[in-house]
Amino acid sequence: MAEIGATATFARYAASAALDDVPDAVLHEATRTFVNFIGCALGGSRHPAVETAVRALIAYSGKVQASVIGRGIQADILHASLFNCMSSAVLSFDDTHAEAVIHPGGPVCAALLALAERAPVSGKDFVLALMLGVEAACRLSKAVSVAPARGNVIWLQTGIAGGIGAAVAAAKLLGLDEKQMAWAIGIALSEAAGMRSVGGMGFSLVAGHAAQTGLRAALLAQQGFTAADDAIEAQRGFAKAHSPEPNIVAMTDGLGEKFEILSNTYKPYPCGIVIHPSIDCCFALQADGLDYAAIEQLRLKVSSGAVAMTNNRHPKSKLNVQTSHHHWVAAALIYGTATLRDGDRVDEPAIVALRERIDLEVDSAMAADAVEAIVTLKDGRVLHKAIAHCVGSASRPMDDRQLGEKFLSQAQTRLSAAAAAELLQSCWKLIDLDDVGIIGRAAAGEK
Amino acid sequence: MAEIGATATFARYAASAALDDVPDAVLHEATRTFVNFIGCALGGSRHPAVETAVRALIAYSGKVQASVIGRGIQADILHASLFNCMSSAVLSFDDTHAEAVIHPGGPVCAALLALAERAPVSGKDFVLALMLGVEAACRLSKAVSVAPARGNVIWLQTGIAGGIGAAVAAAKLLGLDEKQMAWAIGIALSEAAGMRSVGGMGFSLVAGHAAQTGLRAALLAQQGFTAADDAIEAQRGFAKAHSPEPNIVAMTDGLGEKFEILSNTYKPYPCGIVIHPSIDCCFALQADGLDYAAIEQLRLKVSSGAVAMTNNRHPKSKLNVQTSHHHWVAAALIYGTATLRDGDRVDEPAIVALRERIDLEVDSAMAADAVEAIVTLKDGRVLHKAIAHCVGSASRPMDDRQLGEKFLSQAQTRLSAAAAAELLQSCWKLIDLDDVGIIGRAAAGEK
Repeated sequence: MAEIGATATFARYAASAALDDVPDAVLHEATRTFVNFIGCALGGSRHPAVETAVRALIAYSGKVQASVIGRGIQADILHASLFNCMSSAVLSFDDTHAEAVIHPGGPVCAALLALAERAPVSGKDFVLALMLGVEAACRLSKAVSVAPARGNVIWLQTGIAGGIGAAVAAAKLLGLDEKQMAWAIGIALSEAAGMRSVGGMGFSLVAGHAAQTGLRAALLAQQGFTAADDAIEAQRGFAKAHSPEPNIVAMTDGLGEKFEILSNTYKPYPCGIVIHPSIDCCFALQADGLDYAAIEQLRLKVSSGAVAMTNNRHPKSKLNVQTSHHHWVAAALIYGTATLRDGDRVDEPAIVALRERIDLEVDSAMAADAVEAIVTLKDGRVLHKAIAHCVGSASRPMDDRQLGEKFLSQAQTRLSAAAAAELLQSCWKLIDLDDVGIIGRAAAGEK
Repeated sequence: MAEIGATATFARYAASAALDDVPDAVLHEATRTFVNFIGCALGGSRHPAVETAVRALIAYSGKVQASVIGRGIQADILHASLFNCMSSAVLSFDDTHAEAVIHPGGPVCAALLALAERAPVSGKDFVLALMLGVEAACRLSKAVSVAPARGNVIWLQTGIAGGIGAAVAAAKLLGLDEKQMAWAIGIALSEAAGMRSVGGMGFSLVAGHAAQTGLRAALLAQQGFTAADDAIEAQRGFAKAHSPEPNIVAMTDGLGEKFEILSNTYKPYPCGIVIHPSIDCCFALQADGLDYAAIEQLRLKVSSGAVAMTNNRHPKSKLNVQTSHHHWVAAALIYGTATLRDGDRVDEPAIVALRERIDLEVDSAMAADAVEAIVTLKDGRVLHKAIAHCVGSASRPMDDRQLGEKFLSQAQTRLSAAAAAELLQSCWKLIDLDDVGIIGRAAAGEK
């Protein structure tokens, strides 16, 4: 057999993978990713960014085929995947693969759910496709960002590597062969985009765009729209565009034996994941009896990524509160919580004042899920507190019960308590469903 | 007045620009860009890439509002802009701004024409918006690729900088204010994508995607979908993503006084523009009496860009013949022509054999529109020939008559001779039309 490149190798694996070869733990983690997706999509479905996108674009929807979660309407599958992924991402409450710095579940689940409403899809097929999509997105993201590769922090990994996840997942559900699978990857990567500077409402659009373009890439490939079969590793290809020293082997290393979805995590707090260790640290300081009014200065020694992505002392508006390390720390110290409600407190005088007293310092040895706090009190005393692994990290994952509670807290913003509980049960039974489309229809809610 | 950045400065200019401030020569060049666009869209409308994209995606079109050129059908404006831009780009017969290495007309004209069919638009408004869109696309492309900026040849400039053109043009036609204009730019740039490695049918999809996402960005901004107002110059923004030393001033230097569209050019041959000097050189050698059968070796000293983009000795198929320098040179030497028909001769034995005898050499001092040929004959003689400026370059532009002939040769593949001639007349009268939509409807042709 002729030697084939990383893109074709992955495409062959994805096209031929079978459920029997996937360990139960992997399938359960895929289900957890799905539970988290549906909950987040419900929770975010009335965010102004989603409201505005639906208002602007619903007139361009084709024949309705899939539900727009939490909004009681339907759209064609391309628009449904766009809106549903936006909703799942807009509150920064979505899943995170920490090593790959990506939120893989949104693009993958949104594309799959839309297809599953168009024509019945079994839970077994759905879960397998979901796992493969997450695998593609996380591996590609690692190939351009994890050492020895050096990524470029300008790009949003969910934007540039989310589309391949949606494409691979959709292509699997559509039954594409390995050649078409490679084309779908090539098409998706030719449309992969999204930068941290997008600002305003644009952040969730980047994720939604990945879902929509990935799904479209699979639909195009299915009809014979060709592309290169070496889009990832080509001399002028994706990997080289995004890293001077890409680590292409991340795409194929241990394929079918190592599963990236096992490293997927779910956030307990609706903000950038690199802020979470600091929030846990504040809760611990509070538990020790610290009163925020006594603080002269709070220094947080954090990972370099935390500074790069969340050193945003005073968020301009609720739209970018999710990337303000200072805001969530201040809210945690004052209220002892880190909830959607705390995200609304952008202009509260006590929080604004406390944000002034908080400083981030890069500790290049600090892990992304860890933090060390040095609190100087007004009376001159100095307190120390450290968190080794935050809640929701790979080392201290949210358990199924916690994930269920998170789901209900979001689902109940759009559904009755009974309907939310019933939907959660259906989501947990994903792999046994004959028709996953029932979940989309149940999650649609009222107009 | 507070100092504002390049993005906001351009947005302010575009939102406030008026036709009276635009020189007649600029308006005429905008008309020429439009004539070339309509002709190319007709010529490419039945290409397999377009056929396949329409087959795969037409089912997802919303309410029909605009014509799909050359195909006798209609689609929603987002799909019409996608398909029409693809058709205009797919034969590599589209316009070129040589300095910016971009084909600006496709994304801009496709977005505008779709809007002009949805609701009547005057020729005056259309031409102004067209000029502004081309200005945005070319300036942005220059900002990340022209010295002192160093671009990255991996990216297709039409992919990464075409969308801003469509966004600015559409935003102007929709009457957006300067704030919304800046959002439209920010949204478009967050979806800007496309790499040279895309391969297969993907090349034209990159252009089409720019048209569609740019138009969509304007529709989103119109409804209040916000984005940063510094998308180009932000620390983690577009320019930094695409060049280590971006030349942001290219975005605003001489705005309203210098017009990029005056440097737009139109190709006489349906292939990569950096191949054109070599084709002219072959015609000149033929005129001198050279018989291709006598050639032992043909060395072509060309610009570095020509080698980077077209050093493709044996194209894999008709789908990528446009980037094979060797193929077009061989066809020109054998047939004395460089037409769409020559693009089909990929597998002709005489051409395949002659391609083997042709070699490109980088001459870093060679301009993109120039070439020097050294022909070693089988009898040992050596011939020299040089072209200083190829036909269709900024120094030797196609005149209106030549552009009209090019239009008719493409239009007549889909329309009767009379209809093609009538359509050409309407296109030349663009600025005087009360309703530019008549052109889209006339260019639709038959199913």
